Amino acid sequence: MTHPLRRHIEEIISLTDEEFDFILSHFTAIKKRKHQYLVQEGDIVNKEYWIINGCIKSYFVDYLGKEHILQFAMEHWWITDYESFVKQTKSKISIDCIEDCELLYISFENRDKLTSQMHKMERFWAKKSKMGRIALQNRILCLLKNSTKENYNLLLEQYPKLFQRVPKKMIAAYLGVSRETLSRLKA
Amino acid sequence: MTHPLRRHIEEIISLTDEEFDFILSHFTAIKKRKHQYLVQEGDIVNKEYWIINGCIKSYFVDYLGKEHILQFAMEHWWITDYESFVKQTKSKISIDCIEDCELLYISFENRDKLTSQMHKMERFWAKKSKMGRIALQNRILCLLKNSTKENYNLLLEQYPKLFQRVPKKMIAAYLGVSRETLSRLKA
Repeated sequence: MTHPLRRHIEEIISLTDEEFDFILSHFTAIKKRKHQYLVQEGDIVNKEYWIINGCIKSYFVDYLGKEHILQFAMEHWWITDYESFVKQTKSKISIDCIEDCELLYISFENRDKLTSQMHKMERFWAKKSKMGRIALQNRILCLLKNSTKENYNLLLEQYPKLFQRVPKKMIAAYLGVSRETLSRLKA
Repeated sequence: MTHPLRRHIEEIISLTDEEFDFILSHFTAIKKRKHQYLVQEGDIVNKEYWIINGCIKSYFVDYLGKEHILQFAMEHWWITDYESFVKQTKSKISIDCIEDCELLYISFENRDKLTSQMHKMERFWAKKSKMGRIALQNRILCLLKNSTKENYNLLLEQYPKLFQRVPKKMIAAYLGVSRETLSRLKA
């Protein structure tokens, strides 16, 4: 059976068996249980994660103790705090597992080595980075432009499965509303 | 004198004279006057711009006719609507010149050709894309986390020159407040 990471990479670039084995040798497999964290605010992040299965949130807690969710990530998504990972500065956000997760991670050094040596992988991650940037731009447009009801409907339309997998209070923390407001939106 | 684009690229990768000439041959120089546009909402965007000099805003207008500014860009910044440019879909935003501008642009096809042929340029733009993604993540954190006063101070700290170059109503449209509120923040 083709490795899921190979299928994922081959959506953008094609690989020989040798190339994929070389790529995979730069990754490490780990398992995390629900509620375990990948990044804690203040960490200097040295790993980028790829989700084989499971569901993850990136978030921060404001000075009133209120959680704001930046992003949910599921199967075959890449996640880390890119600011901390790229600039090697302290992370402003935290990243936790919402479910038991199987992950692959690549260290900063291995990713740099791999992209230096293989133009194909530079191209692959450049494409992924562009898509991540586009997702963030759309998140900003939604925050500035849409009503909460519109953002709720958009989330439901884009990620219907999320609503079965994620507690309601997290959907509320993503939309920036209280659970009571969320209940009214669903009605 | 070294070309400003060469100095800019060489902050990340080093180039031979031949390599830079080859890169530059993929760009076209244009001038735009204040108030002229680079992207109009609904366009399919085929150019990425690099600012030699001048100041630019990306924005959208909501259904009440209110302008929301996503980003300002100045000397030596790259700007386009990346969603439209990468996916070749209709742009959801507009991009206008706030001052007379001298620009270089590269078409989608030339950028793709250049990054395919030159691993170095793939690497350069991958780095730029990562930095753009980080800037957008910080914009989201600011929108979710900070008070308007905090965001005003942050903008002033990061881009002190912006306040001399950009009309107050645009600063207000970036911060998402009225001009009256902005005046109070400045007091």
